Amino acid sequence: MNRVYNFSAGPSMLPLPVLEKAASELVCYGESGMSVMEMSHRSPDYEAIIADAESMLRKLMNIPDNYKVLFLQGGASTQFAAVPLNLIGRTGKADYVVSGQFSGKAFKEAQKMGYDVKCVATTKDDNFNHIPTVTKDMIRPDASYVHVCFNNTIYGTKYSYIPDTGDVPLVADMSSCILSEPVDVSKFGVIYAGAQKNMAPAGVTVVIVREDLLEYADPKMPTMLEWKIMAENGSMYNTPPCYSIYMLKLVAEWLLSIGGLEEMAKRNKEKCALLYDYLDSQNYYVAPVLEGSRSMMNVTFVTGNADLDKKFASDAAKAGMKNLKGHRSVGGMRASIYNAMPREGVEALVAFMKKFAEENPKA
Amino acid sequence: MNRVYNFSAGPSMLPLPVLEKAASELVCYGESGMSVMEMSHRSPDYEAIIADAESMLRKLMNIPDNYKVLFLQGGASTQFAAVPLNLIGRTGKADYVVSGQFSGKAFKEAQKMGYDVKCVATTKDDNFNHIPTVTKDMIRPDASYVHVCFNNTIYGTKYSYIPDTGDVPLVADMSSCILSEPVDVSKFGVIYAGAQKNMAPAGVTVVIVREDLLEYADPKMPTMLEWKIMAENGSMYNTPPCYSIYMLKLVAEWLLSIGGLEEMAKRNKEKCALLYDYLDSQNYYVAPVLEGSRSMMNVTFVTGNADLDKKFASDAAKAGMKNLKGHRSVGGMRASIYNAMPREGVEALVAFMKKFAEENPKA
Repeated sequence: MNRVYNFSAGPSMLPLPVLEKAASELVCYGESGMSVMEMSHRSPDYEAIIADAESMLRKLMNIPDNYKVLFLQGGASTQFAAVPLNLIGRTGKADYVVSGQFSGKAFKEAQKMGYDVKCVATTKDDNFNHIPTVTKDMIRPDASYVHVCFNNTIYGTKYSYIPDTGDVPLVADMSSCILSEPVDVSKFGVIYAGAQKNMAPAGVTVVIVREDLLEYADPKMPTMLEWKIMAENGSMYNTPPCYSIYMLKLVAEWLLSIGGLEEMAKRNKEKCALLYDYLDSQNYYVAPVLEGSRSMMNVTFVTGNADLDKKFASDAAKAGMKNLKGHRSVGGMRASIYNAMPREGVEALVAFMKKFAEENPKA
Repeated sequence: MNRVYNFSAGPSMLPLPVLEKAASELVCYGESGMSVMEMSHRSPDYEAIIADAESMLRKLMNIPDNYKVLFLQGGASTQFAAVPLNLIGRTGKADYVVSGQFSGKAFKEAQKMGYDVKCVATTKDDNFNHIPTVTKDMIRPDASYVHVCFNNTIYGTKYSYIPDTGDVPLVADMSSCILSEPVDVSKFGVIYAGAQKNMAPAGVTVVIVREDLLEYADPKMPTMLEWKIMAENGSMYNTPPCYSIYMLKLVAEWLLSIGGLEEMAKRNKEKCALLYDYLDSQNYYVAPVLEGSRSMMNVTFVTGNADLDKKFASDAAKAGMKNLKGHRSVGGMRASIYNAMPREGVEALVAFMKKFAEENPKA
């Protein structure tokens, strides 16, 4: 077994002990006589797994009792439609902050569906190199909700604050930062996240929704996108993505075993500091994101020379550090260092960056 | 390792060689240095996996070139909404055959969404103990499509014929019979199926759609439910359920290795004959499904005594045959004997049935 450091933006690394445990019980789970993949979702064995997944997630994130936790399918992109379908009935309009590609997609989806939506702030003109400042006076007081993307995977930016939206519920796509650090769930109306960065393999989407927000669904909407139906059925209106939820449980168990999100945040801060401190200490690479908006999870940098950028990603892959090529919207490199990326991986990357800069002087 | 015979209606058994292979490469896939669960869906390694899954499925089912194969999320229940959203734009109305609970749900979903839908045939008054006879004259000639559920998991019934719907496209939910025997795909406009019976763990839904039917989507529908968008993006408009698709590939590989769907159908016919022949040869158990409508995949039977039924399921579980309790709508027992159930499992069940009948005489 020759594992690499995988800097992919998602799907991305999972903790090795989690993978090893999953492999060891894949064919036969405990005394059940079958794989988790083969279990009826209505069986006591599986009901214990999904209940554990929920209770561990509640414990890790300190989720208040008046919030429902849903395990859905379709990724965050499906929630781009589900959010207005479930919420816009409150007042008939909604506000969006566009801080990158995915928040832009969320906004466009609501627009396409014919709703009265407004982009109240964006940093598009700066190629999304920072997070907009969102204040209460920007928001329509009668908006059904305000939508934000809390960490922008492509650009490597993250909110350093929770916008104060007053009485207007704040809805946050946290796909690429959930479980990376403690967050005050009570400040949000809805938090949703695809699993494939910090929670589990792709295939399960977590929605955390305040109970009073379950009452505004469009009566003609697809049943499977309706949060209230899913909440009433414990995410089992139909067969849930059972194995992905089991993997999420194993990841949550691992997080609890290392000390929860306080310890995880400490490790994540240290990991990203290794990169940002090095980036700030030299001139070969440039980090395009403005201070105050830097993501702990996705660290973007460029050499300023497209050929060198290409060589960097290619040489790094040969050295066992894969998927460092940046998204085409930003160019350069992106190191996604989610929870499961060990400190050693980041140290190896920084060492490689130094060596590469020495060996490939700019003309 | 002490594996049981799992007669669950779904999720259900997977072929043991498939589980063993998945376990062996779970932590590290080939030379990739990572788990399939950790792979970027845009990586060459993963692109090869999803391409193989599609080409193997095409080969197994002999899918014509003018059909697209999509790997989606949300289960068949999500397709209950996606079908009208994608197709009803053709003519503005659609017809449904209601032959059980899931076809009823599909009909109600389209009704709830406000469409002009008509139930053209049902066997509800007979508690769905057979499949309706559907003839062309029952169908509105200007219907956008006719929807059927080809195998009814709960009642244990299956179409023994493909309804002739003339120029009206036939849409079939094949969740619980897909890959059980060869089927002439060209007779259908759309075939869809949740994976968790014969294809893979829960979490991926296969949609096979004739290309000319991709042009009728409701422009305001959720993007993630739009087949055309998914077809144009090779099922990767967003992150697909990567690991479930990989498992589907392993299952398809296994099916090809044993001789494809002809051999699978032969085995399935033999397996269900063991049960039906025994049921027809005695009076202790009754098979409620009428001849001509019997499912190869789900075999239902009752003792006629609720206490005995309960004891049967409980005693069978102790003897290593799990999940034989029937659905509450039918009562009694249901043996789901999908592709991965070995003949030995069915033989063990028949032996158990004989012994149980001897040891538990009716009053």
